[in-house]
Amino acid sequence: MLIAELESRHYRIPLPTPMTDSTHGNMTHFEVVMVRLRTQNGIEGLGYTYTIGQGGAAIRSLIEEALKPVVLRKDARRVEAIWEEMWWRLHYVGRGGLASFAISAVDIAIWDLIGKHDKVPFWRLLGGHSNTVLAYIGGIDLHLSLEELLAQTRENLARGYRAIKIKVGQSHVREDVERVRAVRELIGPDIRLMVDANMRWNVETAIRTARQLQEYDVYWLEEPTIPDDVAGHARIAQEGGVPIATGENLHTLYEFRQMIQHGGIAFPEPDVTNIGGITNWLRVARLAHAHNLAVTTHGVHELHLHLLAAIPNASYLEIHSFGLERFILNPPQLQDGVMVPGEAPGHGVHFDWEALAPYLVAPRETETAPFVATA
Amino acid sequence: MLIAELESRHYRIPLPTPMTDSTHGNMTHFEVVMVRLRTQNGIEGLGYTYTIGQGGAAIRSLIEEALKPVVLRKDARRVEAIWEEMWWRLHYVGRGGLASFAISAVDIAIWDLIGKHDKVPFWRLLGGHSNTVLAYIGGIDLHLSLEELLAQTRENLARGYRAIKIKVGQSHVREDVERVRAVRELIGPDIRLMVDANMRWNVETAIRTARQLQEYDVYWLEEPTIPDDVAGHARIAQEGGVPIATGENLHTLYEFRQMIQHGGIAFPEPDVTNIGGITNWLRVARLAHAHNLAVTTHGVHELHLHLLAAIPNASYLEIHSFGLERFILNPPQLQDGVMVPGEAPGHGVHFDWEALAPYLVAPRETETAPFVATA
Repeated sequence: MLIAELESRHYRIPLPTPMTDSTHGNMTHFEVVMVRLRTQNGIEGLGYTYTIGQGGAAIRSLIEEALKPVVLRKDARRVEAIWEEMWWRLHYVGRGGLASFAISAVDIAIWDLIGKHDKVPFWRLLGGHSNTVLAYIGGIDLHLSLEELLAQTRENLARGYRAIKIKVGQSHVREDVERVRAVRELIGPDIRLMVDANMRWNVETAIRTARQLQEYDVYWLEEPTIPDDVAGHARIAQEGGVPIATGENLHTLYEFRQMIQHGGIAFPEPDVTNIGGITNWLRVARLAHAHNLAVTTHGVHELHLHLLAAIPNASYLEIHSFGLERFILNPPQLQDGVMVPGEAPGHGVHFDWEALAPYLVAPRETETAPFVATA
Repeated sequence: MLIAELESRHYRIPLPTPMTDSTHGNMTHFEVVMVRLRTQNGIEGLGYTYTIGQGGAAIRSLIEEALKPVVLRKDARRVEAIWEEMWWRLHYVGRGGLASFAISAVDIAIWDLIGKHDKVPFWRLLGGHSNTVLAYIGGIDLHLSLEELLAQTRENLARGYRAIKIKVGQSHVREDVERVRAVRELIGPDIRLMVDANMRWNVETAIRTARQLQEYDVYWLEEPTIPDDVAGHARIAQEGGVPIATGENLHTLYEFRQMIQHGGIAFPEPDVTNIGGITNWLRVARLAHAHNLAVTTHGVHELHLHLLAAIPNASYLEIHSFGLERFILNPPQLQDGVMVPGEAPGHGVHFDWEALAPYLVAPRETETAPFVATA
């Protein structure tokens, strides 16, 4: 299964409506960087990563200039060796950060090649634990008024969600507590409720707020403070009394190890598009398993659905609100709070390339080679 | 002191001779990414970062697309606020890694602007502790035979060095020990001797080797294992009995905090070109000071000379072998193992733009605007 070709594309896509969370400010666009690999026998694999508006061109540059020479003429089946070589080639400018985004896109494409070649869907290829995955809806709703938030929550219940996450991090803790209280009252005791602070707080505010949220049965508190503060997370977990989820901003296995080892995290949340692809996502999931922890996810639920289905220690799948699903012809469907991965080989995601075309940033010159992954 | 213009350039420069260390393999090129800022009044500041061959184009992309909009129309004097904004703008794809290289180049340029505006050299601007800095020569010499290594060491002594670092990480520990023994025998007891493993070892090998190196009075052992293994560093420091230096691969303040807090590091070694510029380098230096630790450096000694001169807790300045000094018209000179920073404003480094010109990668189109920093 020799890799003969690598092609990459950078898209910049406006959000349907600008979104706000407590840290990233106003988001108007997201970026997707796609990698297509092709074997000598014409089998194709597709991988991708995304950003919240910055860094897409840099990611594509790393893929084209540093990772393409690593990948070409390699046997896709030796994915662990390819991963190491990518990691070390970018190590001096890497150890996480942007390099992990680039490695992710390539690694996902390699695994897709393997799945396509073997005619096995990801979730079976990677372990096949269960094809039933609990899902929650992750709202980016900090900017909504309380009435709007409640209206959105009602909609989400009507759409079949049995688990809902809202943003916290208003100017005053009492506003956050009031929003959580109101949502809990609306959804009743049986619906899971998570909250996400997007790193807004310092440790003391996080502890104080967590204590006030306890009575509303919050399933987890996500990113209470900056991910660099491992000891702070441990304190928030212990003194706040609400389980902590974090990981969308941890880009190496070792960052997860630190956080897990020091008791700072109850629900590790690796994102396959920025942790270093499927190879490294699985390492984090196994590390979590060895620590008796269940794994949740961030973004790209069409991919994470397969990954959570594969492993024995799956927690909830996040259904993200970025709108990439507008460009997916066969998005996974929710039923009674559950999603089931497909049986098509690899990830089985089919993009609507025509709909994506207007948002292509680079390469500019090529409208020649059609960028179409084979089924 | 409003910043009116930002221009960036990416150079790719062949090494005089290919170099080898235990981890990065054969290195044939290095890259320099330059940032020039200009105020409305025509004052110019120059900053730069470098790589060991990968990532330069991605760094330039981050500078042009993500950081330029942050910097333009800002007052250079508000460098702490600009730094925070750069950090958060790149946070999702950052928290160190490549983003720190991009931030570094811009931050150094901002400080150079301030120095040029105030007509004060960096070392005085940043604290002015002492204008006498001890320097050591850092050889990239793993590929040399023992005879070649000793010949190079003799040359370095003749050039006035009173402190020498050699690479370790041969296939067998006994080879490393033999090289250290032979070098120590050559230089006698009064010359400082450091060794650098470039992350080659696992923790047990590092401890075993460190113990064998103790009798040769090794001043520090650098990067014994991967920088992600904080607990491993603490064990090597405690059980190996040789002080540990590390930091060229740590790209955030928090990574240094982890390493320092857990006793994994005796000589923090932040690199101003990849830790986030002068603003973040000073934070690491101050953190080290609060922990009773002296700071050493990595690369770009023409810049680090000023930084070590500024602070109260300076250890040795590394004189790097990459050969950037070939392109500097006024490289700092060594005398009796000591370097003295200049009194020109800012960093005072004058590049030989004509000599650099053949190595320009991007932007390709511009030979129009001359890229010349004013004295």
